[in-house]
Amino acid sequence: MDIAKIKTLVRKLAKLDYQDMYLNDFLLTWEKSDQEIQATFLVADILRGLRQRNVSSRLFDSGLGISLFRDQSTRTRFSFTSACNLLGLEVQDLDEGKSQVAHGETVRETANMVSFMADVIGIRDDIYIGKGNTYMREVSEAVHQGYLEGVLEQRPALINLQCDIDHPTQTMADMLHLIHYFGGVDNLKGKKLAMTWAYSPSYGKPLSVPQGVIGLMTRFGMEVALAHPEGYEVMPEVAAVAETNAAKSGGKFSKANSMAEAFTDAHIVYPKSWAPFSAMGKRTDLYGEGDFDGIKALEKELLAQNAKHKDWECTESLMATTHQSSALYMHCLPADITGVSCDKGEVEAGVFDRYRKPMYMEASYKPYIIAAMILLGKARCPADSLNTMLTTGNARVR
Amino acid sequence: MDIAKIKTLVRKLAKLDYQDMYLNDFLLTWEKSDQEIQATFLVADILRGLRQRNVSSRLFDSGLGISLFRDQSTRTRFSFTSACNLLGLEVQDLDEGKSQVAHGETVRETANMVSFMADVIGIRDDIYIGKGNTYMREVSEAVHQGYLEGVLEQRPALINLQCDIDHPTQTMADMLHLIHYFGGVDNLKGKKLAMTWAYSPSYGKPLSVPQGVIGLMTRFGMEVALAHPEGYEVMPEVAAVAETNAAKSGGKFSKANSMAEAFTDAHIVYPKSWAPFSAMGKRTDLYGEGDFDGIKALEKELLAQNAKHKDWECTESLMATTHQSSALYMHCLPADITGVSCDKGEVEAGVFDRYRKPMYMEASYKPYIIAAMILLGKARCPADSLNTMLTTGNARVR
Amino acid sequence: MDIAKIKTLVRKLAKLDYQDMYLNDFLLTWEKSDQEIQATFLVADILRGLRQRNVSSRLFDSGLGISLFRDQSTRTRFSFTSACNLLGLEVQDLDEGKSQVAHGETVRETANMVSFMADVIGIRDDIYIGKGNTYMREVSEAVHQGYLEGVLEQRPALINLQCDIDHPTQTMADMLHLIHYFGGVDNLKGKKLAMTWAYSPSYGKPLSVPQGVIGLMTRFGMEVALAHPEGYEVMPEVAAVAETNAAKSGGKFSKANSMAEAFTDAHIVYPKSWAPFSAMGKRTDLYGEGDFDGIKALEKELLAQNAKHKDWECTESLMATTHQSSALYMHCLPADITGVSCDKGEVEAGVFDRYRKPMYMEASYKPYIIAAMILLGKARCPADSLNTMLTTGNARVR
Repeated sequence: MDIAKIKTLVRKLAKLDYQDMYLNDFLLTWEKSDQEIQATFLVADILRGLRQRNVSSRLFDSGLGISLFRDQSTRTRFSFTSACNLLGLEVQDLDEGKSQVAHGETVRETANMVSFMADVIGIRDDIYIGKGNTYMREVSEAVHQGYLEGVLEQRPALINLQCDIDHPTQTMADMLHLIHYFGGVDNLKGKKLAMTWAYSPSYGKPLSVPQGVIGLMTRFGMEVALAHPEGYEVMPEVAAVAETNAAKSGGKFSKANSMAEAFTDAHIVYPKSWAPFSAMGKRTDLYGEGDFDGIKALEKELLAQNAKHKDWECTESLMATTHQSSALYMHCLPADITGVSCDKGEVEAGVFDRYRKPMYMEASYKPYIIAAMILLGKARCPADSLNTMLTTGNARVR
Repeated sequence: MDIAKIKTLVRKLAKLDYQDMYLNDFLLTWEKSDQEIQATFLVADILRGLRQRNVSSRLFDSGLGISLFRDQSTRTRFSFTSACNLLGLEVQDLDEGKSQVAHGETVRETANMVSFMADVIGIRDDIYIGKGNTYMREVSEAVHQGYLEGVLEQRPALINLQCDIDHPTQTMADMLHLIHYFGGVDNLKGKKLAMTWAYSPSYGKPLSVPQGVIGLMTRFGMEVALAHPEGYEVMPEVAAVAETNAAKSGGKFSKANSMAEAFTDAHIVYPKSWAPFSAMGKRTDLYGEGDFDGIKALEKELLAQNAKHKDWECTESLMATTHQSSALYMHCLPADITGVSCDKGEVEAGVFDRYRKPMYMEASYKPYIIAAMILLGKARCPADSLNTMLTTGNARVR
Repeated sequence: MDIAKIKTLVRKLAKLDYQDMYLNDFLLTWEKSDQEIQATFLVADILRGLRQRNVSSRLFDSGLGISLFRDQSTRTRFSFTSACNLLGLEVQDLDEGKSQVAHGETVRETANMVSFMADVIGIRDDIYIGKGNTYMREVSEAVHQGYLEGVLEQRPALINLQCDIDHPTQTMADMLHLIHYFGGVDNLKGKKLAMTWAYSPSYGKPLSVPQGVIGLMTRFGMEVALAHPEGYEVMPEVAAVAETNAAKSGGKFSKANSMAEAFTDAHIVYPKSWAPFSAMGKRTDLYGEGDFDGIKALEKELLAQNAKHKDWECTESLMATTHQSSALYMHCLPADITGVSCDKGEVEAGVFDRYRKPMYMEASYKPYIIAAMILLGKARCPADSLNTMLTTGNARVR
């Protein structure tokens, strides 16, 4: 991307209305207006452009990004660190095992105690339905109050790095990938995207990716077809969001009972495993009761239930039924690849390999999306800040 | 705080004598002169003021802060990281579990090996009486020698993040809180502060907070009343320091046998649990013998001994006996709150909740206190450095 | 070092041919030309000089250094962090335990997923013969391809922080120490260096240090005498490299069967334990079979084999047989010191203590060597970048 193009994007940004994002969080994509979503994509593209031109995009001279991962993570952890670093923030991980959190601290107390110099807090808490997003809002409320009371000199923005409801940093990166892959958001109108369940033998995965995808992708005039075996429903509230979005955007949200049906004539396919909904609910109940043996037993049950649907696999023959036999395959990674990471999994090795490069590109947008969310939450005048970066032109590598 | 006020504080700072702090450590508050203590408070206030005005206070362009925590920590860990980050240092944790320290390295060797680019080393080592502070001095001596020999290009300053004797970053933050809460250090003359033991069911806590409080708070003309059950004495050396300080400052240091007596007419109360002194001594002996089962058994004994004093609890009725029924309640956090984090603890939930905001403010000074200690240990001319920050006026968030 | 001297070194650097190091890795010293090796030493000296003059050497305004340690480490971990920090990079550790690496990710995928903002990747993988270096090349190939495909906006340089074959950051630091200790590389011509095995009771140590030493030190006209008990041979490929190097440099590479023979008239001695070669091979086989009990059993066997050679100890009487009874003692640390860290070890306490200061100096070069490797891998025009640092003259501590 050349400098002229970056300047054009900044001018475009300056015309949008995204003032409510300042000193605010990014928790669910459907809480953001269309212009806010568009601003996030624009800033992500601008930041990537600046990096390509070796222009520093340090918004911060100092400051911390706090990360809290209640579930394993490689790519989201590194994407968050990368985003913070790109803007000049240093990441400090809140490792609950190493801390006194267990010793009776309240959420409010911990949230304030770690945030004296925090400009952003990124949280992953995706295992228990009804818990993760709620926890994020508690943290947000706590630091907001701390800021108002003068305990904190700045108000940290909270970024949802995956909760029980949504996975906005993933789906926004997915969407930006689609925009670039298809040459612009307008070209996505009328395209069919199949968000389907797929078989996995590994563990009961969160619902946040399929939910996040139907909650976001329905906003751009696409036809989003959700398909899964019975018992793998998504949260009804999110399905309702998808309905509303589709109606408003002139797109469509449909539900299918078979992978084949969803794949037929699809321009984009996103086959991915998730846990049965009722199991997710039970897991939360068992967690509430502190029954960790019960959770382990449930995990076995759930994998047994999964095993009844081994035919939900993204195969070459299914791919052949897509639009011009050449739908774009997407995955949030890591995937369960048949014959590679497991005997039988979400996708045939041939399909996966063929789409390796676009999948890596898909993933490559995540750090920029997170950085865009931070910048829009923390810069008083984002377009001005970006213009200053451009005109100052400090080199990233000197 | 406005810029004019910050400038006034810098001018005040410039008139103090604190040259001995340069290339030196901060291990015990009573090793520091009154002007050095005052300089630390001033620099902390200046740094907070700069942050409020969005002025960068990066003293360092690069450099490491090494942290070594031999005990769990959330707030001190984050305060240290925040302080380092504020000044431009990156924190690298020395995790003894991940390192080869166990494989026969001497203290001297490890201290030098991790310090090639270290400007500051923060250590928490508070579990064994006679060990923590001694260890810090060994590390300090090692890096000082390494610096003289040209092995290290800079002399790291050592900051005591809690030892067996003192907890200077905590008590200095506590004191700065008092200064601001009461509208100036002069207003503290003649005020009564009750530093009392309180019951806790959780674990045998270090003596460093009560010791640090009586060792520091007696320097400002206050009446410091120490109260605890028999068997919970503090180290006699530190009690002697408190005596001397009180005599010199025109204050008073008294010992009471009951919480009620200490609370009567107090302007400030600091009820907090610690382990019985003899148990602390035994713990060190057992540690020396490598008897970790013995340590576990001792922990049980000690909690049983604690349980004889469940009536040492900061209640609303006790609070009513304080000066105008409105003493300021303090705690270093986390507290054992009756009915919240335990059945019966250090403080009633009602009292704790009522003082939540001032307690958070109390905690909020710690990062600035630590940053002040670092700046005074590492800047050749602190007042000049701070003036340069002011006149250059680089924005922290651009 | 004064500024004039630094300028001289930069001018010297500018005349060398090291263009192939740009966007390249540092995996084995013998893959680098003599001028590239010389350039690395020069840049290390220049960076140390800049630090001594309080001149910032931040090549990067932002960027990540990824570290991956598959073996315990203190000094290499801190040296890598120090080097990254000196140049302006923030370290993010890839902790395979905390990540989803175990969940079926391929090396190629992980390598790309963590590298979106990575300028350098440092890897320690030294336990399994035939594995470590191979793994590094896989990672390098993966990110190189990711860079070519536009997935990564920059090509991370890979630094070998110890593999099964070589330990270049250690031996380059060792060599730079020798150069300074003996007053210039020319003074090393004809000197005898004894790289000998020594007894250790602790664990089966990698072969990378002795291999790295004979592979590098033979390039400077020295006589390198390798000595070890039967069964402790080094990899034949590396011995061949040493032969070739010695022939080319006018030096000598000899093998002795006794410590005494190697020590006789030596100017430099490097007595250090390593595991028997056949055990290393077996370990890799057992690892391939996933037989971790077998690995433990092997470790016992190997220590029993070591115990047959307790007389391989660096004693005062052996030191007396060296050149003028005053050979320079070297060690990569930590050492097994008789009567200190073990009953019987690699070296007598008296010898070790006497050489403490030079050994610490030896270690102190490592961060600068690593920083030099990074700078030469990432700066398009290293001499220009260093000149800019000099002329801009930003202070490291302001």
